[in-house]
Amino acid sequence: MIAILRPGTTKAQTEPLIHWLEQQGLKVHVSVGDVHTVLGLVGNTEKIDMDMIQCLDIVESVTRVSDPFKTCNRKFHPDDSVVTVGENGPQFGGGHFSIIAGPCSVETPEQILYVAQKVKESGANLLRGGAFKPRTSPYDFQGHGEKGLKMLLEAKAATGLPIVTEIMDIRTLDLFEEVDVIQVGARNTQNFDLLKELGKTQKPILLKRGLAGTIKELLMSAEYIMANGNENVILCERGIRTYESTYTRNTLDISAVPVLKELTHLPIIVDPSHATGKSKLVPSMALAATAAGADGLMIEVHNDPAHAWSDGPQSMTPESFRDLCERIRKIREVIEK
Amino acid sequence: MIAILRPGTTKAQTEPLIHWLEQQGLKVHVSVGDVHTVLGLVGNTEKIDMDMIQCLDIVESVTRVSDPFKTCNRKFHPDDSVVTVGENGPQFGGGHFSIIAGPCSVETPEQILYVAQKVKESGANLLRGGAFKPRTSPYDFQGHGEKGLKMLLEAKAATGLPIVTEIMDIRTLDLFEEVDVIQVGARNTQNFDLLKELGKTQKPILLKRGLAGTIKELLMSAEYIMANGNENVILCERGIRTYESTYTRNTLDISAVPVLKELTHLPIIVDPSHATGKSKLVPSMALAATAAGADGLMIEVHNDPAHAWSDGPQSMTPESFRDLCERIRKIREVIEK
Amino acid sequence: MIAILRPGTTKAQTEPLIHWLEQQGLKVHVSVGDVHTVLGLVGNTEKIDMDMIQCLDIVESVTRVSDPFKTCNRKFHPDDSVVTVGENGPQFGGGHFSIIAGPCSVETPEQILYVAQKVKESGANLLRGGAFKPRTSPYDFQGHGEKGLKMLLEAKAATGLPIVTEIMDIRTLDLFEEVDVIQVGARNTQNFDLLKELGKTQKPILLKRGLAGTIKELLMSAEYIMANGNENVILCERGIRTYESTYTRNTLDISAVPVLKELTHLPIIVDPSHATGKSKLVPSMALAATAAGADGLMIEVHNDPAHAWSDGPQSMTPESFRDLCERIRKIREVIEK
Amino acid sequence: MIAILRPGTTKAQTEPLIHWLEQQGLKVHVSVGDVHTVLGLVGNTEKIDMDMIQCLDIVESVTRVSDPFKTCNRKFHPDDSVVTVGENGPQFGGGHFSIIAGPCSVETPEQILYVAQKVKESGANLLRGGAFKPRTSPYDFQGHGEKGLKMLLEAKAATGLPIVTEIMDIRTLDLFEEVDVIQVGARNTQNFDLLKELGKTQKPILLKRGLAGTIKELLMSAEYIMANGNENVILCERGIRTYESTYTRNTLDISAVPVLKELTHLPIIVDPSHATGKSKLVPSMALAATAAGADGLMIEVHNDPAHAWSDGPQSMTPESFRDLCERIRKIREVIEK
Repeated sequence: MIAILRPGTTKAQTEPLIHWLEQQGLKVHVSVGDVHTVLGLVGNTEKIDMDMIQCLDIVESVTRVSDPFKTCNRKFHPDDSVVTVGENGPQFGGGHFSIIAGPCSVETPEQILYVAQKVKESGANLLRGGAFKPRTSPYDFQGHGEKGLKMLLEAKAATGLPIVTEIMDIRTLDLFEEVDVIQVGARNTQNFDLLKELGKTQKPILLKRGLAGTIKELLMSAEYIMANGNENVILCERGIRTYESTYTRNTLDISAVPVLKELTHLPIIVDPSHATGKSKLVPSMALAATAAGADGLMIEVHNDPAHAWSDGPQSMTPESFRDLCERIRKIREVIEK
Repeated sequence: MIAILRPGTTKAQTEPLIHWLEQQGLKVHVSVGDVHTVLGLVGNTEKIDMDMIQCLDIVESVTRVSDPFKTCNRKFHPDDSVVTVGENGPQFGGGHFSIIAGPCSVETPEQILYVAQKVKESGANLLRGGAFKPRTSPYDFQGHGEKGLKMLLEAKAATGLPIVTEIMDIRTLDLFEEVDVIQVGARNTQNFDLLKELGKTQKPILLKRGLAGTIKELLMSAEYIMANGNENVILCERGIRTYESTYTRNTLDISAVPVLKELTHLPIIVDPSHATGKSKLVPSMALAATAAGADGLMIEVHNDPAHAWSDGPQSMTPESFRDLCERIRKIREVIEK
Repeated sequence: MIAILRPGTTKAQTEPLIHWLEQQGLKVHVSVGDVHTVLGLVGNTEKIDMDMIQCLDIVESVTRVSDPFKTCNRKFHPDDSVVTVGENGPQFGGGHFSIIAGPCSVETPEQILYVAQKVKESGANLLRGGAFKPRTSPYDFQGHGEKGLKMLLEAKAATGLPIVTEIMDIRTLDLFEEVDVIQVGARNTQNFDLLKELGKTQKPILLKRGLAGTIKELLMSAEYIMANGNENVILCERGIRTYESTYTRNTLDISAVPVLKELTHLPIIVDPSHATGKSKLVPSMALAATAAGADGLMIEVHNDPAHAWSDGPQSMTPESFRDLCERIRKIREVIEK
Repeated sequence: MIAILRPGTTKAQTEPLIHWLEQQGLKVHVSVGDVHTVLGLVGNTEKIDMDMIQCLDIVESVTRVSDPFKTCNRKFHPDDSVVTVGENGPQFGGGHFSIIAGPCSVETPEQILYVAQKVKESGANLLRGGAFKPRTSPYDFQGHGEKGLKMLLEAKAATGLPIVTEIMDIRTLDLFEEVDVIQVGARNTQNFDLLKELGKTQKPILLKRGLAGTIKELLMSAEYIMANGNENVILCERGIRTYESTYTRNTLDISAVPVLKELTHLPIIVDPSHATGKSKLVPSMALAATAAGADGLMIEVHNDPAHAWSDGPQSMTPESFRDLCERIRKIREVIEK
């Protein structure tokens, strides 16, 4: 940790601080510059409250040299972690690439089964579908809840696809016993009590980046899960809130993929559907994320009922998804070499 | 609701959509422009899924004309709501202005009692203090929890100041029975299951704007509480995440005060301490928020132990808080006229 | 254009507005809803000042249905534009993909010639290099200016690579006579007088998105150039300013590529070097941009002198650039099918 | 300057860097930590290119300890600067507070004269009005240009109010000879060639913060003017671009006032009109800025013609402006004590 002192700080003011820091077990290196004096603190600086030092009159700024994340830090675990879903199931990380696909919401048993079969044929490795839905408005559809979970499990039984679905309320954890991957949504990335409880399970956790979450915050949230004993964490970039919201709902931060690859050994996947909010943008963003080195993708695929009144919603249909999977595989071949 | 159709959309494509909308009970007004056809939808458009229409091939964009928030909307409730804490306690809104003050964390029974006495003398109407603390890092101090709540209640008993403290986990709600105002922090503004449960109580809820929350989202979160039966909601602007984070932690959006005053009848207070992250900026921001018409303030005040090694933390001390309260009162006099 | 009137607006208040709008030559469609009345304005709404109507007491909001950009709008020009540099030179758009490479600043005649030769061998189609440098600080190196331009032209003469370099001050335009592509940097995207003058030339203009520019603003700036007669505009996404600036300088908005492809017929290239600010992130972002459908790339490549004191800057060297070009070509093959 | 080296960097790798830094005339303090080695560089670090060191393989991060701004830095000039307009004219800074008011655009000689007289009566100290207008669209009104300047000068002659107006193109500087304060708009804050030229005059320059400019960038732009010889710079906060743009055009960053007060001795004023984009928000934001300690305000005031078809635009009229000035004076009395 480095503390930069304000100009004009006297030796008499500095010494009590140095003395106190040394009592905390730190070594203090003092560099006296023309304008500023700089203290370099060496030792177990984890225990020091950075904000407390920051607010001292004589301190201009404090910088932590060490990363605040430990268990997920690649510095202490250079090899990629591989997260395996179930026994011999699909894998993420360490060269393994898997695709999660399915509808935004589970609507009916027929719908979810139909989509499950279709996405499996096209190359998806896991099935997604929302049973508990976080909605900005209390007046919007909140998901089928427990019934939706059952529909998902039926689709799993019929197709063999492991399932991924979101938890919103820690009191419902028991209902997720047969769910293969538990998703933490962007609004709950810093719901720390939820993360702690999930840390006590051994299930793979799909942890989405917050709506306007930093990369460091995402890693600290992973740390909450891992510090409680569960190292099966899959990170998910899903777009961040920026000033640009006319043509895309959020801005997909694809550079988060190589940045996270350097900082952590955990697998990172990308959800282009929620980020852009427009299915016509999904294929190009899915290909871009693959080319950037993501360990997987999460893509919304809808069934395509014959709407009498329209030539069909412009969403990703099972057919367009199959074509996309084909191109994803080819991009993977290029970048794996 | 207004739907703008893509250029080149034929009548044959448009008619099934109009037919379907009419079946949903809406009246549809069609305006044919040189380039675009515009559909004006009149009736109970709440039930229509905007995203679903948005994703049709023939639709360029959809705009909701009515606000999505109802119960908190000033259009349907022109007079200010007044939230009263306890019986004959401090009030927020409708010309009533109250100040919440206290330390960030409850540390010891002596500390919280001392600060409570001091802020009461200076003019604070409520005592704040964190017992359950949301921390980005699992390795940071997480608050004294239930013990911290007890210390707060003791300080309340001794001073008569009603208390405000944050809930993080809905499973701990029983512990908040004697808490006067329950705070929902910025990381839980969209923890919808928590909001729903708080809506079933009748306690005043202090609802903070999300870390990067929009004004509309804040109102929709208030709506979650109110739709479940609890209309005692106090909104709190606490700074938003922007690209500028070198000199302030967040950007305090003081314009949210007059904007919210127009949109909703609920009281709005401002927390300048968390927004700026620097206590030296708190006085000027507190005065600015008061001048902008806020219904109250929430200010961190620390006790001021004689640190041997420093001339004291640069935080807001009871003394500087007293001076600030004096000036706040004078600003109130100017704007109340 | 659509104007939504405030609730409670009377017919007597509305009629003078309608009358005035009709005098401006517009047809006005009136839809009376339960809460709001909506006016749909049809005709040449370009001439109407949206802000003026917006600020009327009886108006809640105004939405433009037509895009404000015309000449660059794909709606009126469905085919891709192809920008050709010089006669038979490299091309951008309409299936043509070109790579611009070179150092950030032109330093010496030897440096720029060396880099030019190297990037040409590796597959670059144009040479970049800064002669006039926009620097945040007046105390930083401002570029070699006119001398730097001469060094670039010598490198062009020796290698045959067309050159791209930035203009900052319209008074220097004469110096750019032999420059093949004139670049407008992110700080000048809304320097409208500069854009107007460049619109009077016929040179290809490489127009960068502003530091925090919206997609609409980028298109309106292109419109400034095109409305003055020059349709040879190449758009460039170069990262936008967001709250995330710890691990990347800006956030590269790769979704801007498919978004712009839909809105405009102009070619779009991506500059991953400036966006990320870290050369180690450049290859993955260059591949991602290619996979997303960009019409070209602009990449910083440095020469690699044997620094005695280091194992070499971690920048993109001619060698790593050659490998990258190889993979870019393979990605192009995948997405062109 | 502090350089933090990557974990695992060997002494053999570090030594050439230290040697090179010492050759540049710096003293290098080395602190060896458990994970990281930290170099503290003392001396004239201005000359060192931070980016160049940043990109070395062995360097994890570089932090500048000294501020990059010098001439405007309060550390080297503790007293407030006072900018005086003309001889014995209105003043900004050092306890002096002035109000600039007037219409967005100069429209006719009658309009600008009328507004000038009205705002003078109400308490404005300077007259503003746009002659050269930066417009996002080339199809929007670009201002009356030179004719507009003449109308402003006539209004000045008639009322005695000094005038403030924006320059967009350095080639028009001669036209500004009789203008009292030259404004640099938010789109030109980093038009460095323009700033350099204005630095060669002795006129007061009103420098607006960029559309999405940081506080540091604003100070560096002031530095461009001051480093060229003109120290008469007035800074202006005018709202920054954030994700919240539904209810306000930009987010007025009032905390920039106390932040800038600490960093620089230059006066800081606030423009609440452009920031919010809604005149109904202007009074509360003007009062807030005054309470926060701003040295002045810039407010748009329109004349109020009897529009036959409306009860008048909801803009700030001369009457509402007079009331506002009254309350501003009272807030000033509170905070001056």
